[in-house]
Amino acid sequence: MNEFSFIEYLRKRASNIGRVPLGIGDDAAVLDVAKDKQLVVATDVIVESVDFKISELSPEKIGRKALAVNLSDIAAMGATPKAFVISVGKPPHVSVAWLKRFYNGLFSLSKQFDVSCVGGDFSSSKEFFASVTIFGEARPFQIVKRSGAKKGDWIAVTGALGGSILRRHCDFIPRVMEGLFLSEHFTPTAMIDISDGLVQDLTHVLRSSKAGVVLDLDRIPVSLDSIKLNAGNKTKALISALSDGEDFELLFTVPAWQKANLTREWKKKFPKVQLSWIGTIIGASRKISWRRNGKPISSPKLPRQGFSHF
Amino acid sequence: MNEFSFIEYLRKRASNIGRVPLGIGDDAAVLDVAKDKQLVVATDVIVESVDFKISELSPEKIGRKALAVNLSDIAAMGATPKAFVISVGKPPHVSVAWLKRFYNGLFSLSKQFDVSCVGGDFSSSKEFFASVTIFGEARPFQIVKRSGAKKGDWIAVTGALGGSILRRHCDFIPRVMEGLFLSEHFTPTAMIDISDGLVQDLTHVLRSSKAGVVLDLDRIPVSLDSIKLNAGNKTKALISALSDGEDFELLFTVPAWQKANLTREWKKKFPKVQLSWIGTIIGASRKISWRRNGKPISSPKLPRQGFSHF
Repeated sequence: MNEFSFIEYLRKRASNIGRVPLGIGDDAAVLDVAKDKQLVVATDVIVESVDFKISELSPEKIGRKALAVNLSDIAAMGATPKAFVISVGKPPHVSVAWLKRFYNGLFSLSKQFDVSCVGGDFSSSKEFFASVTIFGEARPFQIVKRSGAKKGDWIAVTGALGGSILRRHCDFIPRVMEGLFLSEHFTPTAMIDISDGLVQDLTHVLRSSKAGVVLDLDRIPVSLDSIKLNAGNKTKALISALSDGEDFELLFTVPAWQKANLTREWKKKFPKVQLSWIGTIIGASRKISWRRNGKPISSPKLPRQGFSHF
Repeated sequence: MNEFSFIEYLRKRASNIGRVPLGIGDDAAVLDVAKDKQLVVATDVIVESVDFKISELSPEKIGRKALAVNLSDIAAMGATPKAFVISVGKPPHVSVAWLKRFYNGLFSLSKQFDVSCVGGDFSSSKEFFASVTIFGEARPFQIVKRSGAKKGDWIAVTGALGGSILRRHCDFIPRVMEGLFLSEHFTPTAMIDISDGLVQDLTHVLRSSKAGVVLDLDRIPVSLDSIKLNAGNKTKALISALSDGEDFELLFTVPAWQKANLTREWKKKFPKVQLSWIGTIIGASRKISWRRNGKPISSPKLPRQGFSHF
């Protein structure tokens, strides 16, 4: 049993207890709180030995990232982030001065997105970890799940992908404004933030939506970092863009008739954020078919997907 | 700087960002979600090397406790628990089978209190940890903070105290029903769950409420476990009752005129749960004065209070 099958096991067990609009298995859970308002909840934990080395990353960047990955989850629901709590494990090799700098990075981003730190807990521990739980709000019809992609929808992705390890995995700006713009002015049918890699996260959408997809390999936005990381090798850079984790860009689907208008409005609203239409949703295959210049091609060879913590 | 002064430092910093009815510094935070409803949020983390030894406690008990301590926080606010998320760090020495048993204990308690597990996160880690964030609901006037104790109020405590290490720290039943009964039918002015020890948690209430207290040493409810732990020595057992952590009983204050009625109604509603009136709130000294059989006595010698994780 790996991490993903264990989560599926937990999802089934948990679904017997209580009733919520959306539980385990999306970027965030959804709870009813009022007639016209739903609560969106996401949680992410970062651990010293797994996600970063304390010697290699500044405490400010680690603190910033602990919150940023959670903001990205709220963005992927099309919701407005409001507040968060944070539990921290403090090992002996982490000083109070280090911890203050960690919170400096965290609070600086929380100020930028106007989300309040409303609580937390401390424990001593053998290695540093930080578990953030974030709350957002949305009107019921505003929330975008992973499960609504329909045949004929177009798929878009924000920004440029791959090579985030060079820089962006720490200083990316969570696509909160972009997610809200989409959920408030259009009707995206599915949305996810790209944390595990484009292909893997797209697979999550396809499974939830019970749909397949045709992707245009020549429309995948490859980042300059991806080209740099792969020493200028364009084929390798493209593979990076398809499979590297921690891009934290938004991947979403919309009905075809919204595509032209969305493209136009996006350019006005976010002139500096690239928007790429990379393919369309087809029938219920749950698979990815590939095209280049409009012609079917075989699947590119990707590195083994699915980092499991188990 | 110890853990408590660091939390105070964070509280001041966090208060500049956003506006919430109640942020860092109580058993739980309070957020406005609707006109007639507030969201109550608490978080607690348990760590293998600090809170338990995996070899000494069954996984079911550890899972149960991870949720129970959070339910206790919601109880102390007089709110109704609704849902939770959980982040888990899984070290190599913890198997999937162990983890399933951990969740068995957790889900069994969540079913008992009808709270849904709505999400979570996994990471590998060097030692096991579990960070639970719980959400509750309450009507705005129902919420009981630590800060409202007034001169003349009586102080009560549920259950019997001390020696929880023998048994109760794992299998205590969170006082959710009792907390709700108090917040719905009476007007408790302050409430806290006893997690750090009676005297220390009472000190939190006094500091928040800017009040002092006279405690009747002969009215402190000493548990049988406390007597057992102290090999029958009654003086030592009393010290345990005053200072042992993890009792998870409720300590609360009410206006004097509610005392008789509350005592009567409590006996009907919770015939098996002891309720002890242990003292009264006095002026703004923020200190504890002691009495025995109505006469002033000097303060009992307590072990050094205030376990700091720093």
